[in-house]
Amino acid sequence: MAVYTEVSDEDLAAFGAAYDFGEIISCKGIAEGVENSNYMLQTAAGPFILTLYEKRVNPAELPFFLGLMEHLARSGVRCPVPLKGRDGEALRTLCGRPAAIISFLQGMWPRRITAEHCNELGPALAGLHRAGLSYGMKRANSLSLAGWRELFARTAPDAAENIEPGLTALISGELEALGKSWPQASPDLPAGVIHADLFPDNVFFQGGKCSGLIDFYFACNDFLAYDIAICLNAWCFEAGGTFNITKAHRLFTSYETVRPLSAAEKAALPILARGAAMRFLLTRLYDWVNTPPGAMVKPKDPREYLHKLNFHRGVTDISAYGLT
Amino acid sequence: MAVYTEVSDEDLAAFGAAYDFGEIISCKGIAEGVENSNYMLQTAAGPFILTLYEKRVNPAELPFFLGLMEHLARSGVRCPVPLKGRDGEALRTLCGRPAAIISFLQGMWPRRITAEHCNELGPALAGLHRAGLSYGMKRANSLSLAGWRELFARTAPDAAENIEPGLTALISGELEALGKSWPQASPDLPAGVIHADLFPDNVFFQGGKCSGLIDFYFACNDFLAYDIAICLNAWCFEAGGTFNITKAHRLFTSYETVRPLSAAEKAALPILARGAAMRFLLTRLYDWVNTPPGAMVKPKDPREYLHKLNFHRGVTDISAYGLT
Repeated sequence: MAVYTEVSDEDLAAFGAAYDFGEIISCKGIAEGVENSNYMLQTAAGPFILTLYEKRVNPAELPFFLGLMEHLARSGVRCPVPLKGRDGEALRTLCGRPAAIISFLQGMWPRRITAEHCNELGPALAGLHRAGLSYGMKRANSLSLAGWRELFARTAPDAAENIEPGLTALISGELEALGKSWPQASPDLPAGVIHADLFPDNVFFQGGKCSGLIDFYFACNDFLAYDIAICLNAWCFEAGGTFNITKAHRLFTSYETVRPLSAAEKAALPILARGAAMRFLLTRLYDWVNTPPGAMVKPKDPREYLHKLNFHRGVTDISAYGLT
Repeated sequence: MAVYTEVSDEDLAAFGAAYDFGEIISCKGIAEGVENSNYMLQTAAGPFILTLYEKRVNPAELPFFLGLMEHLARSGVRCPVPLKGRDGEALRTLCGRPAAIISFLQGMWPRRITAEHCNELGPALAGLHRAGLSYGMKRANSLSLAGWRELFARTAPDAAENIEPGLTALISGELEALGKSWPQASPDLPAGVIHADLFPDNVFFQGGKCSGLIDFYFACNDFLAYDIAICLNAWCFEAGGTFNITKAHRLFTSYETVRPLSAAEKAALPILARGAAMRFLLTRLYDWVNTPPGAMVKPKDPREYLHKLNFHRGVTDISAYGLT
């Protein structure tokens, strides 16, 4: 949760004057989203979300993210879209930061994940993947193999050991193993636009049905199956750490109603899931040691992802994921 | 800023079913308010605020606060009102905590205070004081003389010294001086319901006009002029620490258009302002040393109120406040 930038009413009124929604009658910081400052706007034309992009987002990449939301929405994916001002621009500046107003998406993210949620997640994710194939822009995944190695090198040498003795060697060894086994793109293992951060707080539901996806600021080009592997980690483990094969089975089978998986994609899942676990283990480890005390964001425990990584290292057959 | 309690969608739906506003289509934690968890609800009938009362609010006192909002609104004060469910109840339980839904108040609190804001604040505060006189319930001010002494006794002995050498002796001496000089209630120095926390983030403006007051969870019975003294501290000092006599003058003169001040009230202002500065100095000092690192609320620097206290200790004549 985070609101980093305090927006004055004068600055906001000047900013809002570029839009056609009439007077802004309220603006409240939302305690959600870790990377950016988000505000709920109430206007004469209804609610909107105002986002100020803070330092972890590269301004040069914003056109990719905002353009993606537009492209996906046009292609039938339910997601927020950037609002254009009367000058036709969606991206402008507020309080010295890049800023955009995006449409309000109804629904709430689920706090207790059920297999029914996974059944809704699958088609939503597959729909995103299918629609993303026709998106014209590309963005490399900065948090893949090379990015993991760089991030681990930038993390304080004793950080991993302080969290769990032996963790440094485990990560080093695993990074080497992933480097050797990481798959190559091929027609059987298609790459495309992935969300790359589709945790439950980025998937909204209303009346038990998925009402849309939010927060595309990690989106990039990578294996589509890698996005499923991220969801496998984020949606299919119970709070106690056990893997719920029923949830995974529902995720896969519902996904395949929209985009069937190739044999190569299924076979790659164990290694992709290890990579996905490594990605979040490393960013959480980095944040764990680099978040100053008193910061508004509480860092998440990296060990959750160490546990998931170890689970996938033990998978010898995709039947462990409920796949055949 | 704070959201302490994570409300699940199932719990929220069950809670919302007691009301007539139709489906809850969104619920987002608001990064405002320090004592309670606040959420912005979007419903078929428009926006509302959901408040979960956290541990610093005594549940036994909630009927006083909620009843006050109703009474004030009925008396013409612009403020949110608790929404009643179909059972006629405003106060119920959510996630094991007392909870209420209150109406949505348009407007935004001002980030840069001008004399014009103070000119709007005065009549709003006086209107609250006048309307509060006919409120049937009473609540003693737990943060007056006896409460300050108790709070200081509960604060770690070295806390004040660590912040500013000599501060312990200054506070002790000042508490003694306040004890000797604190006024007695009299017809000339009327007591009644005060807001007791009317900082800029609790006063909303729209188009330059005050659109209402929020957050009545410190309201209590005390000298009405003490509430003005709190505002004097919260609204009339510049960020650099200088006292802005123009803002104070506008606050007083606009207040008096609704409720004229007696000579006794004016004469008591320097001592009341010292007490008001002491109250926030002590709570900030307590929070400074008792807020754990990594807490979601950043404690505010107590020295701001030490500075204000020292200013009022030097006031020998109410002309220093722009009063005659």
